[in-house]
Amino acid sequence: MTATRVVAFGGGHGLSASLRALRRCAPELDLDITAVVTVGDDGGSSGRLRAERGGLPPGDLRQALVALAGDHPSTRRSAALFQHRFAEVSAGVGPGTRTGTAGHHTVPQGDGLAGHAVGNLVLCGLMELLGDPVAALEHAGAMLGAVGRVLPMSCQPVGIEARVRGADPARPDDVDTVTGQHQVAVTTGRVESLRLNPEAPEACPQALEAIGAADWLIFGPGSWYTSVLPHLLVPELAGAIVASPARRLVTLNLAAEKETFGLSLADHLAELRWYLPELKVDFVLGDSKAVGDPEPVGRAAESLGARLVLAPVAVTDGTPRHDPAALGAALVPVLGAAR
Amino acid sequence: MTATRVVAFGGGHGLSASLRALRRCAPELDLDITAVVTVGDDGGSSGRLRAERGGLPPGDLRQALVALAGDHPSTRRSAALFQHRFAEVSAGVGPGTRTGTAGHHTVPQGDGLAGHAVGNLVLCGLMELLGDPVAALEHAGAMLGAVGRVLPMSCQPVGIEARVRGADPARPDDVDTVTGQHQVAVTTGRVESLRLNPEAPEACPQALEAIGAADWLIFGPGSWYTSVLPHLLVPELAGAIVASPARRLVTLNLAAEKETFGLSLADHLAELRWYLPELKVDFVLGDSKAVGDPEPVGRAAESLGARLVLAPVAVTDGTPRHDPAALGAALVPVLGAAR
Repeated sequence: MTATRVVAFGGGHGLSASLRALRRCAPELDLDITAVVTVGDDGGSSGRLRAERGGLPPGDLRQALVALAGDHPSTRRSAALFQHRFAEVSAGVGPGTRTGTAGHHTVPQGDGLAGHAVGNLVLCGLMELLGDPVAALEHAGAMLGAVGRVLPMSCQPVGIEARVRGADPARPDDVDTVTGQHQVAVTTGRVESLRLNPEAPEACPQALEAIGAADWLIFGPGSWYTSVLPHLLVPELAGAIVASPARRLVTLNLAAEKETFGLSLADHLAELRWYLPELKVDFVLGDSKAVGDPEPVGRAAESLGARLVLAPVAVTDGTPRHDPAALGAALVPVLGAAR
Repeated sequence: MTATRVVAFGGGHGLSASLRALRRCAPELDLDITAVVTVGDDGGSSGRLRAERGGLPPGDLRQALVALAGDHPSTRRSAALFQHRFAEVSAGVGPGTRTGTAGHHTVPQGDGLAGHAVGNLVLCGLMELLGDPVAALEHAGAMLGAVGRVLPMSCQPVGIEARVRGADPARPDDVDTVTGQHQVAVTTGRVESLRLNPEAPEACPQALEAIGAADWLIFGPGSWYTSVLPHLLVPELAGAIVASPARRLVTLNLAAEKETFGLSLADHLAELRWYLPELKVDFVLGDSKAVGDPEPVGRAAESLGARLVLAPVAVTDGTPRHDPAALGAALVPVLGAAR
């Protein structure tokens, strides 16, 4: 039996949860996992590196790699290293400490390492050294003993822009353009339309290949506008997704975020259809409790051609996070069903 | 047959050459290699990290690890990553580029990554994460598939201070205190005495164990005052070196450096004796051409109890660098001789 090839789309924590769930099913289902990651981040450590060194923002790529890191103590340790974030240095650690004099500028004090995750610096260095993000991610995956592959959706960083109604709470009916993944993610207005900048970035060729050869394409969970939908806005990716013979699964979120405030889970599915009308989906996986009344979500799933599957997939402490073990257990019967 | 345990002392390029030579002999002689590295660096990327984050200066440790990195293409690539140095960012790479406004301060422009080798940041992160430089170096060695082990001479960074005659060329007869490894390394005066700060740092316990269990202790080549002699100034290391049943080899430099300007090769040997009078040496290995007249060097070797061995060990382009293959070939008959 050949492996079942799964391509998971997303970015950040949602994709990380999806990948952690998939790797738990991997031995039982013989999965070959590929993550395709948004490259729109412009906040925090990733945003600084992207702005100043010009490569792909590494943070979401790092999270995906770490989610797939091997179980050997040595690769677990490398994963912990990738996640280690340099703290602010306190003034006066040593004679060379640079403090104070530039304090009125936005230049970080000390050594400029503060806030950077080591893995972001490793990825940034590898991309510079090898000149190819795909080769850099392959090597980083080897360093972590990753059980799967991480690819960027595009080998060029993209910008995310949204037209947002009520972006300024003082003018709730006005529609403004909000620029940048970070700003879109934290807007409290209603996202009315989303686009990339450039509008039609080139897709990563290896991601196109993986989609064409996949048995399953998995979308979500994750920040809908800034991590899940961007893939559908890359024309070549959208084309490959529609043309792929793979089955398609959407994993729903557990709660609305700032950027999706006011959006029901049915609305989330409608947004997928809005941005890629040709998208056909086979299964929509929702958390029993988060979905509540299954009727409207079931109808929205049907309009994508999908069947709604409910399972308890959240952590039990009440926070809106997927539990990788529970999500994995819910995925097994879906992905394991004969085609 | 059990492996022959070799401990090589030094720091920077000289130690790197010694380790590259030793690993070439390793299969033939079944060597088990341990490097014990000075931790006095306070210049460049290492100096910034040490001053601002307070751990060991990582540069010389990184060089030693890379010298021992495995031959597999993947570990060669990780070694290249460790050596990759972030360039200065040019102004205006992206919208977030910070330039100009702080240009009159000493704060590095851009992101503060400029000048840092990726391996320095990895080592710095590992030392922070694990809280133990020896564990950090062990993990970094595993990442590089290192054929041997790298240890710091002390788990605390040390300062290097010298009393230097003519440190100021305008006052050639005056003796001044020159502080810091970098400043001592570039002084053009005559180093009259050397000390560490603190004067008696604690030795790395694993280095003491390695010395006690060694079959060979190898000193040099390298910057005599700032990389080779500092080990002899750590009281516990000096004691372990004198007490060790191992044979001892000194590899001579090919040319004087700034810090040793005016010092003959015989003087180099006399300096070893000056700082550790109990030191007995079995072999002194010198480059035939660099030694020239073997008589004075041979006499200085004899005063340490050693026999002078001459071999062509320099690269052939005329620069004063050891050729790892030639140095390895010269080491085989020495290290391979029955005890």
